[in-house]
Amino acid sequence: MPAVPRPCRWRDPLAAYLDPSSGRTWPIETPRWCGDEGQPLLLTDLPGIGRDAIDPAAPGLWRYAAALPFRPREPITMGEGRTPLLPRRLGGVDALLKCEWLMPTGSFKDRGAAVMLSLLRDQGVSAVLEDSSGNGGAAISTYAAAGGMRARILVPDSTSPAKTVQSRAAGAEIQLTPGSRQDCAEEALRQGRDPASGFFYASHNWHPFFLQGTKTLAYELWEDLGFEAPDAVVIPCGAGSNVLGCDIGFGELRRAGAIVRLPRLYAAQPAHCGPLARAVLGLPPEPPRPTIAEGTAIAEPIRPREVLAAIRRSGGGAVLLEEAEIAEASLALARTGIYVEPTCAQAAAALGKLAAAGAVRPGERVAVVLTGTGLKATPRYAELLGLDAA
Amino acid sequence: MPAVPRPCRWRDPLAAYLDPSSGRTWPIETPRWCGDEGQPLLLTDLPGIGRDAIDPAAPGLWRYAAALPFRPREPITMGEGRTPLLPRRLGGVDALLKCEWLMPTGSFKDRGAAVMLSLLRDQGVSAVLEDSSGNGGAAISTYAAAGGMRARILVPDSTSPAKTVQSRAAGAEIQLTPGSRQDCAEEALRQGRDPASGFFYASHNWHPFFLQGTKTLAYELWEDLGFEAPDAVVIPCGAGSNVLGCDIGFGELRRAGAIVRLPRLYAAQPAHCGPLARAVLGLPPEPPRPTIAEGTAIAEPIRPREVLAAIRRSGGGAVLLEEAEIAEASLALARTGIYVEPTCAQAAAALGKLAAAGAVRPGERVAVVLTGTGLKATPRYAELLGLDAA
Repeated sequence: MPAVPRPCRWRDPLAAYLDPSSGRTWPIETPRWCGDEGQPLLLTDLPGIGRDAIDPAAPGLWRYAAALPFRPREPITMGEGRTPLLPRRLGGVDALLKCEWLMPTGSFKDRGAAVMLSLLRDQGVSAVLEDSSGNGGAAISTYAAAGGMRARILVPDSTSPAKTVQSRAAGAEIQLTPGSRQDCAEEALRQGRDPASGFFYASHNWHPFFLQGTKTLAYELWEDLGFEAPDAVVIPCGAGSNVLGCDIGFGELRRAGAIVRLPRLYAAQPAHCGPLARAVLGLPPEPPRPTIAEGTAIAEPIRPREVLAAIRRSGGGAVLLEEAEIAEASLALARTGIYVEPTCAQAAAALGKLAAAGAVRPGERVAVVLTGTGLKATPRYAELLGLDAA
Repeated sequence: MPAVPRPCRWRDPLAAYLDPSSGRTWPIETPRWCGDEGQPLLLTDLPGIGRDAIDPAAPGLWRYAAALPFRPREPITMGEGRTPLLPRRLGGVDALLKCEWLMPTGSFKDRGAAVMLSLLRDQGVSAVLEDSSGNGGAAISTYAAAGGMRARILVPDSTSPAKTVQSRAAGAEIQLTPGSRQDCAEEALRQGRDPASGFFYASHNWHPFFLQGTKTLAYELWEDLGFEAPDAVVIPCGAGSNVLGCDIGFGELRRAGAIVRLPRLYAAQPAHCGPLARAVLGLPPEPPRPTIAEGTAIAEPIRPREVLAAIRRSGGGAVLLEEAEIAEASLALARTGIYVEPTCAQAAAALGKLAAAGAVRPGERVAVVLTGTGLKATPRYAELLGLDAA
């Protein structure tokens, strides 16, 4: 007997997949991760929610479930979200540190993974494919395990076994692919497009549902601040999923009449690999170099136009950080008890530079998004501390 | 000009340090970590609080601050507490997993460290001493950093540098001491007793304020379950700070009339090093052997009598786990998305054995306390998975 399609409880009948270049849409009932020409998709604008629609009894970020395009009958949740917002004075500037590293798998990617896999499972997907040896792969593997879904994670065959332990422990199939990180991404696209692979491409970079998870960061900052938007948000930026998440979330809040003005979004990128920041700053492209901010070392992000538009629309900007600045900010944060990946410590370094340049002014409420736990960067900290921790 | 002593806002004028053997008390105004004969102390019984005394606006465990012996004027907080309680079916038994690993430094010790250092700072202590290369050292180092206090951590000189990276990054002074773990503990006691050392011995094992932090676990479980006590709590047990925390916290809740009955407390210990469990089970002592549950490998806990009394008073018991059982439970949890140290996975293994023995019955609400993140046990998981992750 064929499986009976399970009806979804829709919130907004107009929610649809959207190709932002052409404006073309596709119905949201069917699983879909790209357009018919293989292009990346977003969703159509959703109306957003005000404080009355928050569900105070729901765990973590699921209190904002009414803001999702549809509600999964049974969310896959491990308590992700409702991360601390800690005040710290850093380099003479008052910051509000949003501790997105305090998540079940140790990074902000849990917001996206929890929401994306919950929605996909509701659509009938039971096996997911991802390419990432980092936080993305760990989050997808873990939430797939929590949701009783199969996961296959593609990583370059040069990846050290230590990097995939967390995903393997969750029971994910780790597929070592020959060649570079780019070759690995292309193999993932190939398998994702091949119905015979049996796996749905649930990429943290590609799937628009992932951004439906990261947008809850905006709702949370708004609630953290007594239902007001911050003046600015400083965000470590690789592919830009937190920039886009904030743009979508704060955009919805404005649409819902819950805030008047968008916060200014500032993207922090390493000077060694900062294509989006360079574009914002009007600098010519440069070949990437290795950086300790490895989580943001994305030479070719897949939604550059949307990320740039989001930053400009907000009145924000971008900052490029040198390696020494990132290292210094990592240790400075750790010395206040905040042990995070250097990848995200660059956002703290960026705040200092924005303040020095007058882009962020005294008395403003500025959130600094810290995305990954330092427990995943112990060898890096050992280096920074001059230890031989082999 | 001498520093003016800052008055504390007392909640209970009868709170005092207590020697449980002799019943002797000492006033709580002065910092003190042991009795006059060097014996470990507890506090006198406190009256406990009901739901009306919870402060819903306070971050994390500070919502229960009214239950502390006194309230620090400014808590040192990084958002610790309010950890997820996740339902899972494990080995045919329904469990409620209390995710104490989802804490700022990656372990349950943050409850104790946050409360102990907040109270000590309020008493005027500004430099603290601890002996631990594990979760205790990381928690004390981190909360000292967050609170602007100096920290010195003693570890055996054989400790691998990787184990102290988190504490060093927080700016703690790591003092390598010659000899064994026991020699290290004795050197800490020596420095702690020497006023000239300049450091106050803020030991997670010794100081009774630490248990004032771990007791908030009981308050939280009670609130998680709609202001009812669970039927039983299964606890990984080394020195017993979570057993004692639950005993103190649930005892206060009963004293306050918020619950009628204490939950049964079950201590899980490795068969290779389980002195407390052996005593509960009436087994003769055995020399310790190495175990993968290294966080609970405490051959000589300092409060054995109180831990045994707490377990007996609750009507609970103890379980000894073989190495293979601990390994199997670690992987079984990871395959549901719960990535924790094998040290605490033994509590999940214990639940299965308790159910098989009929000590835990179907339909009972049983909390399993998971105390440390798997991100600190990556090499151990690599071994369990048969990977060469050097």
